[in-house]
Amino acid sequence: MGRQKVYLDKLSRFFQIRNMLLRQALAECLGTLILVMFGCGAVAQLVLSGGSHGMFLTVNFAFGFAAMLGILVCGQISGGHLNPAVTFALCLLGREPWKKFPVYFLFQTIGAFFGAAIIFGMYYDALWDFPGAFNVTGPNATAGIFATYPGKHLTIVNGFFDQIIGTAALIVCILAIVDPFNNPIPQGLEAFTVGFVVLVIGLSMGFNSGYAVNPARDLGPRLFTAVAGWGGEVFTVRNGWFLVPVFAPFLGTIVGVIIYQVMVGFHVEGEVRDNEGLKEENVQLTDVADNDKTNDKTKTTH
Amino acid sequence: MGRQKVYLDKLSRFFQIRNMLLRQALAECLGTLILVMFGCGAVAQLVLSGGSHGMFLTVNFAFGFAAMLGILVCGQISGGHLNPAVTFALCLLGREPWKKFPVYFLFQTIGAFFGAAIIFGMYYDALWDFPGAFNVTGPNATAGIFATYPGKHLTIVNGFFDQIIGTAALIVCILAIVDPFNNPIPQGLEAFTVGFVVLVIGLSMGFNSGYAVNPARDLGPRLFTAVAGWGGEVFTVRNGWFLVPVFAPFLGTIVGVIIYQVMVGFHVEGEVRDNEGLKEENVQLTDVADNDKTNDKTKTTH
Amino acid sequence: MGRQKVYLDKLSRFFQIRNMLLRQALAECLGTLILVMFGCGAVAQLVLSGGSHGMFLTVNFAFGFAAMLGILVCGQISGGHLNPAVTFALCLLGREPWKKFPVYFLFQTIGAFFGAAIIFGMYYDALWDFPGAFNVTGPNATAGIFATYPGKHLTIVNGFFDQIIGTAALIVCILAIVDPFNNPIPQGLEAFTVGFVVLVIGLSMGFNSGYAVNPARDLGPRLFTAVAGWGGEVFTVRNGWFLVPVFAPFLGTIVGVIIYQVMVGFHVEGEVRDNEGLKEENVQLTDVADNDKTNDKTKTTH
Amino acid sequence: MGRQKVYLDKLSRFFQIRNMLLRQALAECLGTLILVMFGCGAVAQLVLSGGSHGMFLTVNFAFGFAAMLGILVCGQISGGHLNPAVTFALCLLGREPWKKFPVYFLFQTIGAFFGAAIIFGMYYDALWDFPGAFNVTGPNATAGIFATYPGKHLTIVNGFFDQIIGTAALIVCILAIVDPFNNPIPQGLEAFTVGFVVLVIGLSMGFNSGYAVNPARDLGPRLFTAVAGWGGEVFTVRNGWFLVPVFAPFLGTIVGVIIYQVMVGFHVEGEVRDNEGLKEENVQLTDVADNDKTNDKTKTTH
Repeated sequence: MGRQKVYLDKLSRFFQIRNMLLRQALAECLGTLILVMFGCGAVAQLVLSGGSHGMFLTVNFAFGFAAMLGILVCGQISGGHLNPAVTFALCLLGREPWKKFPVYFLFQTIGAFFGAAIIFGMYYDALWDFPGAFNVTGPNATAGIFATYPGKHLTIVNGFFDQIIGTAALIVCILAIVDPFNNPIPQGLEAFTVGFVVLVIGLSMGFNSGYAVNPARDLGPRLFTAVAGWGGEVFTVRNGWFLVPVFAPFLGTIVGVIIYQVMVGFHVEGEVRDNEGLKEENVQLTDVADNDKTNDKTKTTH
Repeated sequence: MGRQKVYLDKLSRFFQIRNMLLRQALAECLGTLILVMFGCGAVAQLVLSGGSHGMFLTVNFAFGFAAMLGILVCGQISGGHLNPAVTFALCLLGREPWKKFPVYFLFQTIGAFFGAAIIFGMYYDALWDFPGAFNVTGPNATAGIFATYPGKHLTIVNGFFDQIIGTAALIVCILAIVDPFNNPIPQGLEAFTVGFVVLVIGLSMGFNSGYAVNPARDLGPRLFTAVAGWGGEVFTVRNGWFLVPVFAPFLGTIVGVIIYQVMVGFHVEGEVRDNEGLKEENVQLTDVADNDKTNDKTKTTH
Repeated sequence: MGRQKVYLDKLSRFFQIRNMLLRQALAECLGTLILVMFGCGAVAQLVLSGGSHGMFLTVNFAFGFAAMLGILVCGQISGGHLNPAVTFALCLLGREPWKKFPVYFLFQTIGAFFGAAIIFGMYYDALWDFPGAFNVTGPNATAGIFATYPGKHLTIVNGFFDQIIGTAALIVCILAIVDPFNNPIPQGLEAFTVGFVVLVIGLSMGFNSGYAVNPARDLGPRLFTAVAGWGGEVFTVRNGWFLVPVFAPFLGTIVGVIIYQVMVGFHVEGEVRDNEGLKEENVQLTDVADNDKTNDKTKTTH
Repeated sequence: MGRQKVYLDKLSRFFQIRNMLLRQALAECLGTLILVMFGCGAVAQLVLSGGSHGMFLTVNFAFGFAAMLGILVCGQISGGHLNPAVTFALCLLGREPWKKFPVYFLFQTIGAFFGAAIIFGMYYDALWDFPGAFNVTGPNATAGIFATYPGKHLTIVNGFFDQIIGTAALIVCILAIVDPFNNPIPQGLEAFTVGFVVLVIGLSMGFNSGYAVNPARDLGPRLFTAVAGWGGEVFTVRNGWFLVPVFAPFLGTIVGVIIYQVMVGFHVEGEVRDNEGLKEENVQLTDVADNDKTNDKTKTTH
């Protein structure tokens, strides 16, 4: 194995990227690709099999565990956001620098684009075999495999509210999971727990418009469908619905951050601050330990 | 990020609540809100989609994992009861002070009320689109999305018994999970395990009347439906059924506490006491360690 | 709370049982009660709701997670066997004394009997409301809620083989999970893993005769049905089928123990023995450590 | 128990195999047997019960948790690959010696063969009772219980692509889970996580041809069906489809290894190397620690 090791080592040195932000962006890209590939793959399986190989529950499981796996793949490097709304929440709270936000958003969207592309390739034959191939609307529409579209009963206003609530719920739970002052779960299980959050959101908030709660997860695949044959209708349908899952989640993030901080976050944080004030004499040690803890949990690298 | 940190710090100091009981009550409120929001959301998705986006199993999953997430969000602060019956059990065993019971009950009910309100807002269009919108009884009733109603086959007596058994089963399992003398699971996994308890109760005890086993989870949303358009019928239907999920769970708690303590709890507790008696000489150290363990597990703060 | 603590302490001293075997037997009884209560409860929910509140998958989930919870409740005290076949396997391997076998078998069967009784009480109204209440055979039979009956296609020989394979599979997996020389999972997660074993057996081996793989789980509820109104037919139907789930699992245990030991167990055990021989000089320390490990894992108390 | 211990000890010494590779091969054989027994058992339950005791979701659960259990049974001894594609990936990266590849492949295939045989025996009556017993094609075909066959819509080219994508997705996730430089999960939970990977692949990539993504899992049972009564048609059907799940997964492995290493692996590895270079003075200690970590995670024993 001597020669193989040398060769692998050379490859490793050749491909190694030393720029931390680019490396993190690449990891986010792969993580979001995995999220969308497995998630949209499950929708494709449900739609194209006519229900024989899936149901709404399997889509929920797939998105939940896909989020879990996406976070596992990239979490150590980039924090495993997979969602611009999560990045936005952490920036709002000062746990990630703002410059990360546009970079992550871009690479998450790119990852989602390619995740959709892989599923398109995988189910290419099945898609052509399906009666409504490349329909955006109607009973046999297939555009919903990739991006989300509102149910018939839904108005734009309610849809906007739906995305705000869904994202706020997601953000409240994620903040509780990664709060450095309120560590409820053993280290290393964050990804599993976030997977269950996504699963539960799908089980209870998926009927209105398919719970995007993630601008990148919706925009990337929608761009792909526009290119791949469904055409510009994916943007124009229902008076520009596509803007809702792009913008509402950020409003939902703000709501979620406020709710969590006002009802839980500020108090535990304040308690830690109070305790630090009391034992000012041994402040240095505490400080170091607290920082360590913060870094461990949010895995930021600024 | 300097200015942002200063601003966040100011906000944090402004909103910080120093009264421990109020802080705990707020956390319980948010936890129960999450439980009801996700749980009733799954029922809404099942009912309003006519079964296309859910089934009874998805409701069970949603309530189970919603309990898990609710506990994760507030467990570090308030213990994560989410249920007056759980608070009652811990008071009975002397692990929580009795003054917590009414406060927690109130805030859990408030949380459940708002959890139902969020789902009402989220599915407002879908509700109006549904044939039986605002019906309390009949095949298209929607009141069951929020509070529980007995099946047609159920008499009040059997329903009372049903709630007693369900709550007793819940309490036996929860006591085993948090017993400081019988630690079966790694610290930090209590929330997951309680989630599975709730899931299993739904899988096996949900047919009679929808397994409330939680006075706050039932009363809060029922109050909301009375206000939001279903009217007083939600209280009068089936000869005041609403009293059963409010009172029976407390009886079930007593049954559960007795069963667990007589069959398991008293003996392990006694063994620890016996061992302490034997090594009286190094009693102090043991004592401290035992207290620590107790506090870690039940997270009380009296 | 002073007076409450004194009263609780008195109660605790009054009920404390100091005989270890009796205490373990009681714990096994409660654990098996929980297994059967939740498991058979799910079958009852499926059968009596006519499929609206369950399906075969929910029964599998319920038995899996019920096993998990049963083990959590009693595992620290009695080892959490819940199944005479598991006790038999550990006796065969010398990890439990043989005198435990009849005691555990008896109390597990008693626990299963009362677990069935609780479900009978809980679904009493639903049972009387069901067309085939108290039928042992036919399309609306309800005896299958409690004990297992073979499918129409099954011969006794194949049924015997079915129970042997199912129990062997169970035992191989359980031995791997609790093998003191081959610790694959973090301490405290054994119960979860065994739950998944039971779940998988249900998913893949449940079609022939409902995967009893546990003499107590089958015999206890069958005795209950004989008493509660289904009559002696529960024993005589299909030429005494009831003997198969009582005896075949023990044969399956022997098969499972042999397969695991020959293919995995003897080699890892031997390796540990070899290593001990090498470092004979510091044998004492190793010995103590190994014993500790064994006790931790199998939780025996002889 | 004295005599029993002596007897067990003799047995243990008699059967102990000291050749490490043979012992590992035996463990892989048992692990793959468990994977195929539970996985194909679930397909058998679904097909032979006509859908009453299973659905596609139960097959996905069964394969996922069967992989988990198979890894738990043999992981400490052989690494728990259960899949020649996984062995291939670890050989490519220099973490396993190439000589293991043919041995593992052979024993994994043997294990899969016997896993299929056990299910055949278990459901022998049910199979004869089924209308299409021993059909390879047509609506009542049963050959699909054991090996995978392409859907009607699938061309060979798309099928090949399907297997490449599926295996690449599997390998990317597994590499992230066992990467010694990127440890995302607590030790001991690798098996659970891999189980979720297999589950998600089934939820989203199972419609085309049943997601073999494992040459041994497909070839072993196919050989068994050829022998057991389905005949040579299992190899000739659809122009030699059986070659796709044997060869495409290895191509997919190469794709997966490249994607993971280029997007994540090389950079974390390089960072560790860079850090080592910096602190050259205390290089020895770091080295030892790193090796330990590597061994812990990949469990290699060269």
